[in-house]
Amino acid sequence: MSETWSVEEHLDDILSSVRPLEPIELQLLDAQGCVLVEDVAVPVSLPPFDNSSMDGYAVRTADVEGSCEEFPAVLTVIGDVAAGEGDLPVVERGQAARIMTGAALPPGAEAVVPVEWTDGGLGGGPVETMSARSTDPGGAAGEVRVHRPVEQGQHVRPRGSDVRAGAVALSAGTLLGPPQVGLLAAIGRGTVTVRPRPRVVVVSTGSELVQPGEQLGSGQIYDSNSYVLTAAARDAGAISYRVGAVSDDADTLRSTIEDQLIRADLVVTSGGVSVGAYDVVKEVLSQVDGGSGSVEFRRLAMQPGKPQGFGLIGPDRTPVLALPGNPVSAYVSFELFVRPAVRALMGRASVRRETARARLETDEALTSTDGKRQFLRGSYLPPAAGEAKGVVRPVGGAGSHLIAALAQANALIDIPEKTTRITPGEEVTVVPLDP
Amino acid sequence: MSETWSVEEHLDDILSSVRPLEPIELQLLDAQGCVLVEDVAVPVSLPPFDNSSMDGYAVRTADVEGSCEEFPAVLTVIGDVAAGEGDLPVVERGQAARIMTGAALPPGAEAVVPVEWTDGGLGGGPVETMSARSTDPGGAAGEVRVHRPVEQGQHVRPRGSDVRAGAVALSAGTLLGPPQVGLLAAIGRGTVTVRPRPRVVVVSTGSELVQPGEQLGSGQIYDSNSYVLTAAARDAGAISYRVGAVSDDADTLRSTIEDQLIRADLVVTSGGVSVGAYDVVKEVLSQVDGGSGSVEFRRLAMQPGKPQGFGLIGPDRTPVLALPGNPVSAYVSFELFVRPAVRALMGRASVRRETARARLETDEALTSTDGKRQFLRGSYLPPAAGEAKGVVRPVGGAGSHLIAALAQANALIDIPEKTTRITPGEEVTVVPLDP
Repeated sequence: MSETWSVEEHLDDILSSVRPLEPIELQLLDAQGCVLVEDVAVPVSLPPFDNSSMDGYAVRTADVEGSCEEFPAVLTVIGDVAAGEGDLPVVERGQAARIMTGAALPPGAEAVVPVEWTDGGLGGGPVETMSARSTDPGGAAGEVRVHRPVEQGQHVRPRGSDVRAGAVALSAGTLLGPPQVGLLAAIGRGTVTVRPRPRVVVVSTGSELVQPGEQLGSGQIYDSNSYVLTAAARDAGAISYRVGAVSDDADTLRSTIEDQLIRADLVVTSGGVSVGAYDVVKEVLSQVDGGSGSVEFRRLAMQPGKPQGFGLIGPDRTPVLALPGNPVSAYVSFELFVRPAVRALMGRASVRRETARARLETDEALTSTDGKRQFLRGSYLPPAAGEAKGVVRPVGGAGSHLIAALAQANALIDIPEKTTRITPGEEVTVVPLDP
Repeated sequence: MSETWSVEEHLDDILSSVRPLEPIELQLLDAQGCVLVEDVAVPVSLPPFDNSSMDGYAVRTADVEGSCEEFPAVLTVIGDVAAGEGDLPVVERGQAARIMTGAALPPGAEAVVPVEWTDGGLGGGPVETMSARSTDPGGAAGEVRVHRPVEQGQHVRPRGSDVRAGAVALSAGTLLGPPQVGLLAAIGRGTVTVRPRPRVVVVSTGSELVQPGEQLGSGQIYDSNSYVLTAAARDAGAISYRVGAVSDDADTLRSTIEDQLIRADLVVTSGGVSVGAYDVVKEVLSQVDGGSGSVEFRRLAMQPGKPQGFGLIGPDRTPVLALPGNPVSAYVSFELFVRPAVRALMGRASVRRETARARLETDEALTSTDGKRQFLRGSYLPPAAGEAKGVVRPVGGAGSHLIAALAQANALIDIPEKTTRITPGEEVTVVPLDP
């Protein structure tokens, strides 16, 4: 216990042990937010056939050459081609097929004349719209006057102009957001193989903890850690389960954790990791799995969050992160260690939050203990237009129990180990905490 | 139909009609990501009692005055005070109570000596830790040697030092992220009144549409819009329901929409809003609710996404946004109009995406139609450290069917109506699309 670890050493130890979850096949919408593990090839070119980009008339270009409003080309309308129609009419010389956006270009036709360049079959001037099929079935017959010529292929989206069969639509490692889900749907994939969202089980410990909404007894406080950590794990991309508060009793805690392992890809505990006589998390986590547990408890050169535990337990070597119990310590520890672990389980390329440099806006200089990396809570304002740097103002004090101040913060201010003093206006590193 | 609306006019019309949803009371974790509608006052000060910030011994300061390792103060240990204990011993002169972090300071005691400043009751030199209660119940008796004095209140967190009873913990309008959920739990709130997540029903239309995973027939394509829009609505904060593709048949579409209204706070359709003879969305949405529907169809001065519909339908005047059917048009329309509507329903203060200025990185100048606001897809790289602006490179062409290119983009490039040409290196407005 006397060796002190740096934040980076502890995180590296976690990341070198946590492996991405085994891939599973999911329905497309269930895979949203997950990382693809296969290169997905395009089975069929998109669009799969030449099709119209406009509502109008499919024609042969020679038939409308030189046409104008005064001397329109008059064509015989041989029918409709609606989107989705498989049975296409053949457009012969002097003919036109009324065609809808997205419908296949019928054989014989070489281009599409938009309806606005015609009389719409009404025998008058240019029209702006077609009459609805349901109210005017006759619109697909008779004659149409075309007022402008079209070139070969005009208003036609050629087969394969979006993607060609055989091309890689998305590469392994791609994060599936809405547009990527859309592309997979467009090429016909109903399911896809991804790394699933990790299931994170959150257990807070402490005999003093009472569930919110219940009555506080003497010496008791409300359990907030299990709520913060469950919510934060969800924001990080996990499916999170809040077990709630377990009392400082070794047997209860041991059986709770053993029970939960079945549904956990990661276990997060808070509390009971310090040097006290009732720190049962430390006691229990070195014994889970018949004593073969390998959870190590460490002192980190950081503030808040000094005592931390990490190891792999149970038959599946499930990673467990044991965080300190002070609410702010627990949340800062989550951000620094649990979030990267969740994202490593997901196979995300980038597991750490982005950082930014900001000007410190404060009335008095900040002090920090030499040899300790300090994480203050801050209110961060990103750079205004044209500026390179934002500003950050510390919120609340350094006390690790100031959960009220934490709720006003939107960033951590990261003060390096060697820094002992930062004067107003100096530049600092911030970690914005936006979801 | 001949009047043309600007993007802003159409959005303003939507936002002036869409009202925030009625508040409901939710369990704390279900309220994550929602907006609070009440000022939440602190019912009980935090911490609710003076408590120890360290594991150690609760003492009277006079008893340890002048103590050092050579001449320790020797105190009688009268018992343990664990966190959560309501029954506190009284610390008399010459006595100490072993105390754990978070435990209430017992009457008589004025400060806490950390265990590291004592012999831990073992009669030797300074210790680093306490022996676990379960392995050594005797640690709470006998004598302890204290090696350093403490001041009044040292290592004690006074009652109310975090928040005081009566203070406003969180104001109405606060978005509930993990720290805010944590603060509400800490002050004992098990439920909270928020605006719920809107339920968004997504219907795509088109007889050519086939569900991904099924066999494509001639003239058919896969339905991707219902997937993109469902995923995007979820990313925007909604609970989204994908109804899937409905054929271009007015009766089917009408009954589908009427059926869905029961679970919809917002209906989004794609396709069938253009000028073609089969554009049944337009036909139907002016008739839902016995002809009293008020959905208006418009031409917008934008590219892609020209045809748009918006109105309120059904007994609850449910907002419906009818988007064009081209996949890229549908997605861009979602970003510009549906996302703000979803966030307005949630009561979010800011309904629009943030924008940034970026340098255009392109080999050739971009052209844009005069009088049309164009939204190109781009790959945006945020500013490097110390830089004020990022760079953006257009991805794919202007074609509204290039869904493959959309899946490579992470931003929209917003080209104003009057701009017709942008040369490489010029500054443009981008809309980053990060979730």
